[in-house]
Amino acid sequence: MREMEHVKKNPDAKLIRLGVGDTTQPIPHTTTSVMSQYAQALATIEGYSGYGAEQGNKWWCMACGGWCSGGVWRGVVGAVVVYWCVVAGAVVELRKAIAKTIYKDRGITSDEIFISDGAQCDISRLQAYVDSSVIIGQASKFQEQTGKYNNIVYMSSGPENNFFPDLSNTPRTDIIFFCSPNNPTGYAASRRELEQLVEFAKINGSIIIFDSVYATYISDDSPRSIFEIPGAKEVAIEVSSFSKLAGFTGVRLGWTVVPKDLCYSSGFPVINDYDRIACTCFSGASNLAQAGGLACLSPQGYKALQSTIDYYMKNAEMLADTFKSFGLKVYGGQNVPYLWVHFPGSKSWDIFNQILEKTHILTVPGRGFGNKGEEFIRVSAFAPRDSIYEASMRLTNYFSETTPKKLLMKLP
Amino acid sequence: MREMEHVKKNPDAKLIRLGVGDTTQPIPHTTTSVMSQYAQALATIEGYSGYGAEQGNKWWCMACGGWCSGGVWRGVVGAVVVYWCVVAGAVVELRKAIAKTIYKDRGITSDEIFISDGAQCDISRLQAYVDSSVIIGQASKFQEQTGKYNNIVYMSSGPENNFFPDLSNTPRTDIIFFCSPNNPTGYAASRRELEQLVEFAKINGSIIIFDSVYATYISDDSPRSIFEIPGAKEVAIEVSSFSKLAGFTGVRLGWTVVPKDLCYSSGFPVINDYDRIACTCFSGASNLAQAGGLACLSPQGYKALQSTIDYYMKNAEMLADTFKSFGLKVYGGQNVPYLWVHFPGSKSWDIFNQILEKTHILTVPGRGFGNKGEEFIRVSAFAPRDSIYEASMRLTNYFSETTPKKLLMKLP
Repeated sequence: MREMEHVKKNPDAKLIRLGVGDTTQPIPHTTTSVMSQYAQALATIEGYSGYGAEQGNKWWCMACGGWCSGGVWRGVVGAVVVYWCVVAGAVVELRKAIAKTIYKDRGITSDEIFISDGAQCDISRLQAYVDSSVIIGQASKFQEQTGKYNNIVYMSSGPENNFFPDLSNTPRTDIIFFCSPNNPTGYAASRRELEQLVEFAKINGSIIIFDSVYATYISDDSPRSIFEIPGAKEVAIEVSSFSKLAGFTGVRLGWTVVPKDLCYSSGFPVINDYDRIACTCFSGASNLAQAGGLACLSPQGYKALQSTIDYYMKNAEMLADTFKSFGLKVYGGQNVPYLWVHFPGSKSWDIFNQILEKTHILTVPGRGFGNKGEEFIRVSAFAPRDSIYEASMRLTNYFSETTPKKLLMKLP
Repeated sequence: MREMEHVKKNPDAKLIRLGVGDTTQPIPHTTTSVMSQYAQALATIEGYSGYGAEQGNKWWCMACGGWCSGGVWRGVVGAVVVYWCVVAGAVVELRKAIAKTIYKDRGITSDEIFISDGAQCDISRLQAYVDSSVIIGQASKFQEQTGKYNNIVYMSSGPENNFFPDLSNTPRTDIIFFCSPNNPTGYAASRRELEQLVEFAKINGSIIIFDSVYATYISDDSPRSIFEIPGAKEVAIEVSSFSKLAGFTGVRLGWTVVPKDLCYSSGFPVINDYDRIACTCFSGASNLAQAGGLACLSPQGYKALQSTIDYYMKNAEMLADTFKSFGLKVYGGQNVPYLWVHFPGSKSWDIFNQILEKTHILTVPGRGFGNKGEEFIRVSAFAPRDSIYEASMRLTNYFSETTPKKLLMKLP
């Protein structure tokens, strides 16, 4: 709304969008050419694959080892059953490639990896727990004032606790959603902190859903996967994606790791349930996207995507320098391609509006992420380099000229 | 399991798979070349699109008209918000193309169409209602004996009621799942029957979830969409897909129609809820698949896919003639690319096993679709023509030679 209003009011202003974390740089040719060839091959008998029926003997559902004859309406299960085992060419290979490339030395095997159409979708499937809880009332009452549900514990993190929750004060929950590097704060949890988290989950019998979609942006020695932590395989699921890793926000591809060692208190392996849900509710990621994912993980492809990551991180550095030059405290930017900029004493929507109106730059007001974001804005570095230059210049002009008069009244 | 066993036991037999309805014929070149070009363009600044941020002013969530600041964990909503409005180039165009091509003269506008990654996924999202019901106990007890939940009404259809349920005996439900042409029976409901169904839903305040994934295979004058029925817009959602329409089982693309006229008893439009769920739980179909979908709906592309449909329907005709020549009653095949073959007095698993062992042809035992399928097998016509010839020959040899001795003992 605000953006559309702004564009309407300022039809000639060149808006720079540093709001939503949307990738902007082209996908390396090594990857697009594979997808392109794969698409062409779909027009040939040899290259065509549907659910994959012609690809040999991996016809059956991993979950139920058969026709999945749960009697589900209209028999679509029959079709899906096939899928998981058979897009094969791509799925099986891609699982192997992920195990080998991303989970090398982390003890994860390819059959613990599930290809998805992006982390968002997998997280939704897992969050269904939260949503269902809300729907059936287990989350208890929604508090208008705090914007929270009573029975959902919000782990609070800000500068005062170095962006890592105080676990000694955190009540037990069944599921712990944890995102590192964190969005929006940009903080990558340290090895010691993740060890504490794993320990906490063990003691409480909780399952950690670990979101590592920004892991490849980590530049220091923070763990890139929860499975770098000993014992994590008994308490954690990891959700990740090619979106930020390889610019696949539009292509749609991701994965979820469900270790065989992860069991319910009854001793029943979670992976069996996950298989079943995946078989029933999901027909798999597009074979074109999977072909692209495979290309990304080739040595050549991986090198190419690394240079796109470097490009965004250079953007982040330039933006961070800009905000720091105004005397502001800037978080993030080191292990993620966005900043979490602190304006002590200000309201995030005010800052957001001022920046938009005066510099035509779109950011995200921190309040949108919860109460703790009230004094912050998030600034994305996903943009072409010239937009970053231009944004830095506009910000510098505005802040150096007008800050004394207007904004600095609220600044420290 | 049975298939793998069989292949193991008969390593030299050439198995013909007429089981799962899996498309086998290449996608027309007019479509694959567009996907191929689209993939190549992703390597260029001009052709790249992520969530679509660079594509103008359609930045906001259709559902909430803003940042969707529901405070959802990690702010991914921010990203998704963008998606629905912005993959734009493709989504908006594809929605328009579907409205113009598939829903011409049916009064459906493009903003009532939601692009998905395939009917399976949309149905799951809708079925979440059923699954949730089961989980929270509203479906009541699972009956081991019947394989049914007490509070779910199974609309029974077979030859005795011409494959259309007797609505005068059907209890009221909130949601009515209805598939036409039906899988597995192959029956396409007539206009009169669908008028009855719409009337039934109106009287009961039910919502029909209408699955029309096989609609383009209809060769008689049965309705191809529930929205051919007057008043359906007030009671129905339609779910469909490019999978069977265009051989996109692996590419993944579908759509759902939620008419603005469809409201809860409170008067609140269902489309507002659907938007919200889509925004929160889904990041959209792959842009590559959407580009392909658009190509399919061009005049040239549509003509090409029609010839693939004709190919499968010719297969179905050949298979139907074969089974009929044994004196068996064959349903389906006229409006769908599969047969529902009746073996009165036999058990479907026995028939399935006999055919597999004696002819190395894989079908689906009807029992997998529920009790009413006990005397049936489903035979798919999704196969290369030479496999259909070969299958017809093997079946003819087997049935004409061995039927008197073995199989006919159970036949009428």
